[in-house]
Amino acid sequence: MSNQDTSSYTLHLADTTLILGQRLSEWCGHGPALEEDIALTNTALDYLGQATNLYKYAAQLEGKGQDEDQLAFLRDAWDYKNHLITELPNGDYAYTIARQFFFSAWYGYTLQQLMQCPDEYMRAFAEKSIKEVRYHLQHSADWMKRLGDGTEESHARLQKAVNEIWTYTGELFMPASYESALNWINQDELKNNWDALVTATLKESNITLPADQWMQRGGKEGKHSEHLGFILAEMQFLPRAYPNAKW
Amino acid sequence: MSNQDTSSYTLHLADTTLILGQRLSEWCGHGPALEEDIALTNTALDYLGQATNLYKYAAQLEGKGQDEDQLAFLRDAWDYKNHLITELPNGDYAYTIARQFFFSAWYGYTLQQLMQCPDEYMRAFAEKSIKEVRYHLQHSADWMKRLGDGTEESHARLQKAVNEIWTYTGELFMPASYESALNWINQDELKNNWDALVTATLKESNITLPADQWMQRGGKEGKHSEHLGFILAEMQFLPRAYPNAKW
Repeated sequence: MSNQDTSSYTLHLADTTLILGQRLSEWCGHGPALEEDIALTNTALDYLGQATNLYKYAAQLEGKGQDEDQLAFLRDAWDYKNHLITELPNGDYAYTIARQFFFSAWYGYTLQQLMQCPDEYMRAFAEKSIKEVRYHLQHSADWMKRLGDGTEESHARLQKAVNEIWTYTGELFMPASYESALNWINQDELKNNWDALVTATLKESNITLPADQWMQRGGKEGKHSEHLGFILAEMQFLPRAYPNAKW
Repeated sequence: MSNQDTSSYTLHLADTTLILGQRLSEWCGHGPALEEDIALTNTALDYLGQATNLYKYAAQLEGKGQDEDQLAFLRDAWDYKNHLITELPNGDYAYTIARQFFFSAWYGYTLQQLMQCPDEYMRAFAEKSIKEVRYHLQHSADWMKRLGDGTEESHARLQKAVNEIWTYTGELFMPASYESALNWINQDELKNNWDALVTATLKESNITLPADQWMQRGGKEGKHSEHLGFILAEMQFLPRAYPNAKW
């Protein structure tokens, strides 16, 4: 365990929340109803706020005189450590909800463990953020049940989404080198908690749990899908075109 | 004055906040810095919340069994009563800030007068919303000064933005038929307050006040630029593709 591992882990969480926040913000003005627009945009905003706090800490740990904006906007795709699941395109509303549910369940249990980690900044971060994330989890779990137990079409769409996203859930529990070095998270406990909640929620939603299968991996170590490149191209255009926002 | 006038006026404010919220949300993930991303997205979210409250009231006044989503998503461009200034494309950051400042100054003074209007729902709405709008005004006025009094480039960009947007500020003070019928707003007082604040802020920002000129009009009566059509096409795609979000 080193400062470098802490900084990598912090960047991993920062990138994860930034990219998913970015994705969710694409729904702003495109949700199926005003209330959902507001809920998804609020979630995006929570993630952006969390990412800012994490980048600030990472910048401090790295000690290279960079600020949070430089870390968010001036790194390349292979430096990003977000989970692959966060860069998936939004798909339809059922797809976004399923991704949101799988991710929020992981993120909530992760923050719960981080509240006991040896790093003071991260403990405070986890304590502050878990309230937001519990709400996101509740919101997405409610929608899983509404869509899964709704009409024939909503059920079919949600089952399809769950089947497609499943291969991206494995990475959530494969520790990257810096995570293994830090050893802050008990991965077995995390996986058991997640499995229990996901199994129960899918059952309540009348959705079939996908079979064991090959799992995508690599995001946490900088190996990304082409989707990330497009997100970054859009996101980084302005800061790169006007470095240091001098004007 | 009739229920129809109150409903038209409520829709006018609802459309105005929805469309500007829509525009601002396009900045999410594209601001010059994380903090600005968050500030603009927060503002968008405030507008979406205000629009929802206004559409709810309009739906009640219209009494045709429509809900707020149907009013927001299923009307055509010629039914929209938003100010033209709110549908202008975002341009660069200076342009967005100038539009935001001119609009927020108008909106803040309008809400101040609405707090005394005869309609109880609108009084409560104004009282709740004015806190948010004062913050938007403060934020945009601060940026007017930072950009106007900043570098040569930021000054030039802001002056250009002010010159271009000016022609859209006249409509803010030309009452539509339903506004004249209601007579809730003292237009002279509104214009005087706005002029005083705008003149003082432009002066502090070293920005030249544009000369008197021909002013654009028509938005409040349903005559819109082509920009609105594109906004609605994007915004209404999902609700129209899946009517009543049945799935």
